Amino acid sequence: MPVVRLDIAYDGSGFHGFARQPRVRTVQGELEAALEKVLGHPVETTGAGRTDAGVHARHQVVSFEVDEIPDVERLRRSLDRMLGPEISVLAASEAPEGFNARFSPAWRAYRYFIDPRPATDPLTRNWVWHLGRPLDLEAMNAAAAAFVGEHDFASFCRQRPGATTVRHVLEAGWWAEEHRVVFGVTAKAFCHQMVRSLVGFCVDVGLGRRRAEEVPEVIAARDRQRVGTIAPPHGLVLWEVGFS
Amino acid sequence: MPVVRLDIAYDGSGFHGFARQPRVRTVQGELEAALEKVLGHPVETTGAGRTDAGVHARHQVVSFEVDEIPDVERLRRSLDRMLGPEISVLAASEAPEGFNARFSPAWRAYRYFIDPRPATDPLTRNWVWHLGRPLDLEAMNAAAAAFVGEHDFASFCRQRPGATTVRHVLEAGWWAEEHRVVFGVTAKAFCHQMVRSLVGFCVDVGLGRRRAEEVPEVIAARDRQRVGTIAPPHGLVLWEVGFS
Repeated sequence: MPVVRLDIAYDGSGFHGFARQPRVRTVQGELEAALEKVLGHPVETTGAGRTDAGVHARHQVVSFEVDEIPDVERLRRSLDRMLGPEISVLAASEAPEGFNARFSPAWRAYRYFIDPRPATDPLTRNWVWHLGRPLDLEAMNAAAAAFVGEHDFASFCRQRPGATTVRHVLEAGWWAEEHRVVFGVTAKAFCHQMVRSLVGFCVDVGLGRRRAEEVPEVIAARDRQRVGTIAPPHGLVLWEVGFS
Repeated sequence: MPVVRLDIAYDGSGFHGFARQPRVRTVQGELEAALEKVLGHPVETTGAGRTDAGVHARHQVVSFEVDEIPDVERLRRSLDRMLGPEISVLAASEAPEGFNARFSPAWRAYRYFIDPRPATDPLTRNWVWHLGRPLDLEAMNAAAAAFVGEHDFASFCRQRPGATTVRHVLEAGWWAEEHRVVFGVTAKAFCHQMVRSLVGFCVDVGLGRRRAEEVPEVIAARDRQRVGTIAPPHGLVLWEVGFS
């Protein structure tokens, strides 16, 4: 069956996450309701990242099967008008045969934004964690470097019964950008709450509460109790979804 | 009399501008109400930039006279708590004798943010003008270069009776930043609606409706009718206030 691909972005502040759920407002729920109105029949969508409540997307990919490919630019404009300004439809296209937004991506990249200054930045408050304390970026980068590679990230994930927590982190690092501190991490896929747990651990390192050298033993322990802090959702942005 | 200096930032979306006005919510009004609560008596503040309704500030400077300098860090924290997250109090300090936020600055810098892509960016929608059309950055830079220097900007200003519209633009230019197009402009001072008029003219140039070569004659005309478009307020940010 032909597949339509949508590239979208959203401010997650007003949603109970990406994934459709009964009786609450979700990105997928709003998108499927809009699609049903435009196409005249219900469709079932799949997303590249199941972002949690409050988490944002600068670039999320969604796909769904159709009997016949519609006028994609008209579809993009209609959806964008119906869903904006909280959800934007950046692009709509016919995907290659067999394309699936969940299984086709080669990697996902997330960014996490922290403001270490005493006062908040009013213009970015929706997507920046206002920590309000200085951070040791060098120590945080040492911790981030130890995440890279294939590991069982059970200590950094909310377990789902029967699912593996082995993941391959391709790159991870911290840098300064204007007055903000930014974490960038790329992996083929992430397990649940993984990025926020990695950030929480790094922040503890940056505040001097934990040491970067602990990372290998924390990974080896496969015990979620070993990671104390989980960073709040609103600083997290699904940044890019990559193919091939 | 001793002078207190406050460095603040705000999301202008929910305010009828900076300047105090009866019966509407303004940044200065909210700030003075909070100051009265903290200090126990009313004060009259002065700001470096009288930003219009909907215009934001990444860095605005405010000053006021007091009989005695209070504990400035405690003042900063109290105000920040009372006014956040829409208004942030970045710093509070005792200013040098004779300091006045309106008259002491050596320059003000503004930035204006435009998104030329078809769809909005949900995370930056409060402070980016979603134009949705591609712009010729080179032509816009040619127009911006012609603004630099001392000119009578009457064609680009909303006149105030009896006030001069001669201003000295120190620098002006456009650049690309991520997917956005950004205008940066610095002057000792600006007249009313000047930056939004400069931006509006440049956008007309960037869309091919006007030519950069027209700038000298538009300036010479001293006629506001010569500038058609005024860019909307929400893309404008008072970026920095400089002293000497």
